Amino acid sequence: MDAERTPRPLEHPLPAGMIDLLPEDASARRALAQRILDRAALFGYALVTPPAFEFADVLERGLGALDPADVLRFVEPESGEVAALRPDMTPQIARMVATRLRGRPPPLRLACEGTIVRRRGGRARTQRQIPQVGIELAGIGGLAGDLELLEFTADVLATVGLKAFTLDIGEAGVVRALLASLAPEHQARLSMALSQKDEATVEDVCKVAGSPYAEALCALPRLHGQRDALVEGLARLERTPAHAAATRLLELFDALVASELFGARIVADLGEVRGFAYYTGAIFHAYAQGPGDPVVSGGRYDELLGRFGYPIEAAGFGLDLDRLTDALHVAKVARPSAVRVVVVGPACRERVASLRGRGVVAVCAEDGTQALRWARAWGFTHVVDASGWLETLTGERVASPLEERESR
Amino acid sequence: MDAERTPRPLEHPLPAGMIDLLPEDASARRALAQRILDRAALFGYALVTPPAFEFADVLERGLGALDPADVLRFVEPESGEVAALRPDMTPQIARMVATRLRGRPPPLRLACEGTIVRRRGGRARTQRQIPQVGIELAGIGGLAGDLELLEFTADVLATVGLKAFTLDIGEAGVVRALLASLAPEHQARLSMALSQKDEATVEDVCKVAGSPYAEALCALPRLHGQRDALVEGLARLERTPAHAAATRLLELFDALVASELFGARIVADLGEVRGFAYYTGAIFHAYAQGPGDPVVSGGRYDELLGRFGYPIEAAGFGLDLDRLTDALHVAKVARPSAVRVVVVGPACRERVASLRGRGVVAVCAEDGTQALRWARAWGFTHVVDASGWLETLTGERVASPLEERESR
Repeated sequence: MDAERTPRPLEHPLPAGMIDLLPEDASARRALAQRILDRAALFGYALVTPPAFEFADVLERGLGALDPADVLRFVEPESGEVAALRPDMTPQIARMVATRLRGRPPPLRLACEGTIVRRRGGRARTQRQIPQVGIELAGIGGLAGDLELLEFTADVLATVGLKAFTLDIGEAGVVRALLASLAPEHQARLSMALSQKDEATVEDVCKVAGSPYAEALCALPRLHGQRDALVEGLARLERTPAHAAATRLLELFDALVASELFGARIVADLGEVRGFAYYTGAIFHAYAQGPGDPVVSGGRYDELLGRFGYPIEAAGFGLDLDRLTDALHVAKVARPSAVRVVVVGPACRERVASLRGRGVVAVCAEDGTQALRWARAWGFTHVVDASGWLETLTGERVASPLEERESR
Repeated sequence: MDAERTPRPLEHPLPAGMIDLLPEDASARRALAQRILDRAALFGYALVTPPAFEFADVLERGLGALDPADVLRFVEPESGEVAALRPDMTPQIARMVATRLRGRPPPLRLACEGTIVRRRGGRARTQRQIPQVGIELAGIGGLAGDLELLEFTADVLATVGLKAFTLDIGEAGVVRALLASLAPEHQARLSMALSQKDEATVEDVCKVAGSPYAEALCALPRLHGQRDALVEGLARLERTPAHAAATRLLELFDALVASELFGARIVADLGEVRGFAYYTGAIFHAYAQGPGDPVVSGGRYDELLGRFGYPIEAAGFGLDLDRLTDALHVAKVARPSAVRVVVVGPACRERVASLRGRGVVAVCAEDGTQALRWARAWGFTHVVDASGWLETLTGERVASPLEERESR
């Protein structure tokens, strides 16, 4: 092997699925997270910060919606116990709510930001790091809680500049009620077939399982769309135990439409099964052009906090910052670009200090011969020397880009 | 065991040394990190974000100053290779500089924020999580680079409100030069004795080791303080290979005093040995009232990037956000407190929206009976209902705390 020919990055590889964020991406990511957290604070969501890893049993107690095989575990060397990198922030927040925040009166509105790590199944087993903002609302149940959470979801997406997105809502209670009487293996096969909207398999399994709600289950894959699909679904589910949940979904749909969530197209799916063993009520996903997967995933999990010994209602969502970045890119939401200045020459220090004092990013380059190349490589917009201003991109002389006159 | 009597937090313990940040602390921590990163951006430091864990050999290649036993390792399940939670961000940044950022012209000014994890030796072996901001300046060597970095250090501490601190500077080259000819075990014993300023042991080991610089080594524990200590040290080191490094330290001292670093008391220590095998030039620590340990630790490590195949000069520092928070608390630096409002009553939603539109944190409480208790528990400053404003702390009626008149 010729070391000189080996691409440099491969000399120091990262674990599969781990990535570095380089300057432009890292600052864009942080600014995006900050805008979301600022908005969350405005809406009364208090920031909490759990640790990056903890004992696996705590995390697994609160998972449910995630395959345990997706969790990256290791033996914590001091205790000899199994710890895990968090695959989801919700179990950690649930633990905090049930322990250290238990003395505070509900409702609890909490926000959390950080990276979660999930292993990924399939042929290319690897893990991936997902930067997230998590939002939790505990102590407000039912429609009122769902609405508060979804209105915040819509607000925050609009705030970061996503003008158009689809909010896809479902109700875990529908499938839960129709599958409740069946054996676990039939439940598993039916939920898989329902997730793929595979009517033929649903019909086959219903026959084998002897489900009393075969007709309703077979209809579910088609019961998605706008209000008319929900109304049709209500009729089809009328004599089944899923009727109450379907009614709740229609109520939520109507309330969301009435609230005029800015920019959201609302669709409903009575056959929604994602995480139905974990969620107990509303399930929602927000989609935008660009990422194939949802930008926001969440729902109501009224049984979660009970697993930590504090049975109160709760709902929440996770916002995937990578997918949101992708969606904003596709939607051509431009980041505001500020003036960033390289000051050239032996007397640069005072001018740099003056620019920084006015909030302008500035650095000194005593030797100016490479200043333009350096400015281009590092995203500085202007170079200024004794003769005046240069625009970095064009290399041409321009007037001062700063509105006010400089003091010198 | 009576489960009801067990304190709740112990039901779901955290790994030793891991902590949760509750609302007030979490938001204070994030705001502090943001102020520091904003200041770093103004000074031209570009944010980068490496992953939270990576292969242990990459991290260990760049450690040097840290005992390998301090690193939390685990077997990465997909590759079977040993990964580690980062005990320091510098090796990761060095890897990025030497690989993905190698095509960009120096100097490189980089900032990084995150949590590092270190195991802690001694009887109570445990790990601890340390929230840090890391700053790296690569490609500017010697005094010019040291000064740029230290002036930023002083600026950032002043910006977050730390008016008075001590900047303790040393030079790795002094002890390096005096120990260079000795056997490793004598080097280790001498650096330990020097770190404890234990003159008697220094003298004993020098005798055993047959050091030609015994006189200079025995003097080092006393050669710390202000300029006069450095001048005395220069005289004592005149005929030793440490003279050049001591001269550099005096130059740095004089330059720092001349630069009038706001709020910094500057002391120098020719016997500084912390990390002397890792650092190659200036070593610095900033201390403030409160935390016994330094708020900032850093120095010059011109050999680090070479270990990753890109031999350029570099220096940097880590700012410990826990210790800085402690120091700001002791210095009674108050956090700005904003008006946060609970709006009571069935028509609260419009008023909440109006307040949020003006940037005021507001939540709705349709049932107002518990509003004051809730507001106190969650740090809301005011409750407002149809009859007017209540101050949360006193429970008394007050005028509107908002400067402008509300629209309704």
